Amino acid sequence: MGGGSWATAIAKILMMNGTEKINWYMRRPSQIDEFKRLGHNSAYLSSVNFDISRIHFYSNINFAVKNSDMLIFATPSPYLKQHLKKLKQDISNKIIVSAIKGIVPDENLPVSDYFNKVYDVPMENIAAIGGPSHAEEVALERLSYLTVACTNKERARSIAQKFNCNFVRTTISDDIDGIEYSSTLKNVYAIAAGICHGLKYGDNFQSVLISNSAQEINRFINTVHPLVRNINDSVYLGDLLVTAYSRYSRNRTFGTMIGKGYSVRTAHLEMEMIAEGYYGTKCIKEINECYHVNMPILDAVYNILYERVSPSIEIKLLIESLR
Amino acid sequence: MGGGSWATAIAKILMMNGTEKINWYMRRPSQIDEFKRLGHNSAYLSSVNFDISRIHFYSNINFAVKNSDMLIFATPSPYLKQHLKKLKQDISNKIIVSAIKGIVPDENLPVSDYFNKVYDVPMENIAAIGGPSHAEEVALERLSYLTVACTNKERARSIAQKFNCNFVRTTISDDIDGIEYSSTLKNVYAIAAGICHGLKYGDNFQSVLISNSAQEINRFINTVHPLVRNINDSVYLGDLLVTAYSRYSRNRTFGTMIGKGYSVRTAHLEMEMIAEGYYGTKCIKEINECYHVNMPILDAVYNILYERVSPSIEIKLLIESLR
Repeated sequence: MGGGSWATAIAKILMMNGTEKINWYMRRPSQIDEFKRLGHNSAYLSSVNFDISRIHFYSNINFAVKNSDMLIFATPSPYLKQHLKKLKQDISNKIIVSAIKGIVPDENLPVSDYFNKVYDVPMENIAAIGGPSHAEEVALERLSYLTVACTNKERARSIAQKFNCNFVRTTISDDIDGIEYSSTLKNVYAIAAGICHGLKYGDNFQSVLISNSAQEINRFINTVHPLVRNINDSVYLGDLLVTAYSRYSRNRTFGTMIGKGYSVRTAHLEMEMIAEGYYGTKCIKEINECYHVNMPILDAVYNILYERVSPSIEIKLLIESLR
Repeated sequence: MGGGSWATAIAKILMMNGTEKINWYMRRPSQIDEFKRLGHNSAYLSSVNFDISRIHFYSNINFAVKNSDMLIFATPSPYLKQHLKKLKQDISNKIIVSAIKGIVPDENLPVSDYFNKVYDVPMENIAAIGGPSHAEEVALERLSYLTVACTNKERARSIAQKFNCNFVRTTISDDIDGIEYSSTLKNVYAIAAGICHGLKYGDNFQSVLISNSAQEINRFINTVHPLVRNINDSVYLGDLLVTAYSRYSRNRTFGTMIGKGYSVRTAHLEMEMIAEGYYGTKCIKEINECYHVNMPILDAVYNILYERVSPSIEIKLLIESLR
C-alpha cells in the first residue's frame, strides 16, 4: 500500500525473496499506467525494474484489501488516515504490517495501536518493520538489516522470512511500540542535526547531539513503553544514525534549510517532499505532555518549527543541556 | 608534551582559557625553532597562531617536567614509552593528564594505569581527557565537548576548569579506565567502518556496524572495568561516532585503504601518519584473551590486519554476527 520510495523498495525485496505475485495499491491510476508502461516506478527508485506480470496493481483500496491476506502499509504517516478513509472492507482478520515508521497525526498513536483501536485488528496480527534502511540503498541492493516486531514471536518470524533476500537480513523483536516511537523520534533528531549543520556546527558537536538524541529516545520509550531492550540495537540506534548522518535523509535536509534561515513553508516547497519529522515533532511533543520526559532536543526542534524561535538562539540554549 | 595536532589543539584551548604561560615539550629542536619563527606549528594545525611570548618550549623532557606541576601528555600512544625513556626526573608527585586516548603497547595497560604502576603516580593524581574532539575542529573553534575523568572528583573538576573556553565545554567522570578503553576501541571500529566503506558497503550497513560497535565497547568495558555508566554519553558513543563517520579520521581513512586492497604497510606509507587503531586492535585483542568478551568486529579487524585474511571474506563472515 503506497507508491513512494519505501513502498517500491519493499516490493523489490518481496519479489527478490521469491514471492510469486503481489498486489500493489497506489492511489493515482496515472502512476499505475506509467508503471505498467515503463516497468518501473517513474517517481521513485526509477532504476529498479519490475516483472510487471507478477504485480497486480490497484488504485481502489477496497479491491486491493479484499484480494490480500497481508496488508503492508508504506505510505507516509501523515497520509495514512486519508488512504484509510476510503476503506469500506473489514480488515480485522487481516495481517497488518506497518512499514510506516511514524505516528498517526491528531490521534497521536503509533500505527500499530491505531489499527488495533480503530480497525479492531488484534495486536498479535500486527507487525512493524524498522531498522536503518534508506530505500535508495535497498534499490542498489546494498546490504541492509530490517527488524520485524510483533507481540507474537512466531508471527514476527514468519513475516521476517518474507523479507529475507540476498541483500536484506532480518531479525525479530517484540518491542513494536518502542520501535515505532523510536522510528518517529529519529526523524526529529535528524532535523535537529540538519539545523545544527545549517548553523555551521561541526562534526564534534554533531556527535554530541546524536549521543544525547539516543539517550532521549531511550528515556522516552522506557517511560512510555517499559520493556527490557538494548537501545543500541540497530533498529533504534542504527536507524537514528543512518537518518541523522546520511545524505539521503529528507529530514536532515529539511533541518539544514531551517538552520540556514528558510521558513518551514519555504523549506517544504523547495524540497517538494514531506519531512515526516515535522509532524513527528508535534506528535511526540503532545504525547510527552502526559509523561514529562526530559527531552531538551525535541523541545528545541518544536520551538524552532512551531513557535518560530530563531534556530541560533534555541540551539545556543540547548547546548547547556547536552553533555 | 607532544608536537602533534592534538597537542597543538590542547595548547590552544589552555591559552584561550587564560592560562598565563605554558611549558611545551616537543622532541625535535628543529620543530621548536620553526614554531618560534612562524608563530605556529608548521606541521599540524598551521592555521592556529600562538602568542609565542606565553610559551616556554623544551626539547628536553627532563627540564620540561622539572618546571611543571601538571603534565599533559598528548603524544600518540605507540610513542609514549619512547619519550618517557629519556625521563630521569621523579614524576610521582606531579599531576598527570593523559590526552593520549590509547593503550601502551606491549604493556597492554591504559595510560593512566601505566603511570600509576610504572611511575608510582597515585591514581587520584591521574586524569584522562576524552570526548569527540577532532583537533582540526578545535583549531577552527567549532564547539566541542570534553570529559575529564579522574577517580578524585574534585581533581577532575579543577582540571576540567582549565579546559573550558568559549568553544570547549567540559564535564567530569570517574570512569578513567572505561574512557581510555573506549577511546582505544573507537579507533578499531573506525578502521572497521573504513574497511566496509572500501568494500563498498553502504550507509545502511555502516549504521548497523557502528551500533554493534557501541555494543561491543559496552560489553568490553563493563567486563574489564565494571561501573555504572551510560555508554551513550558523548565521551563513549560520541567519540565513536565522530571517529567512525568523520572525514578527518585517520583510522577510517586507513581502513578504507585496507578495504580497497592496500596492504597495511602500503597504507601506512601512503598516509604518512600513524593509525593508532592498528596498534589498539592488537592491544585489545591480547587483553581480551583473559576476558573472552564476545567481540566479533574487533576479531574481524584483527584477522584482516594481523592474519592477512582477505577483507571481503572476513566481513562476509562478520555479517552473520551482526543484527
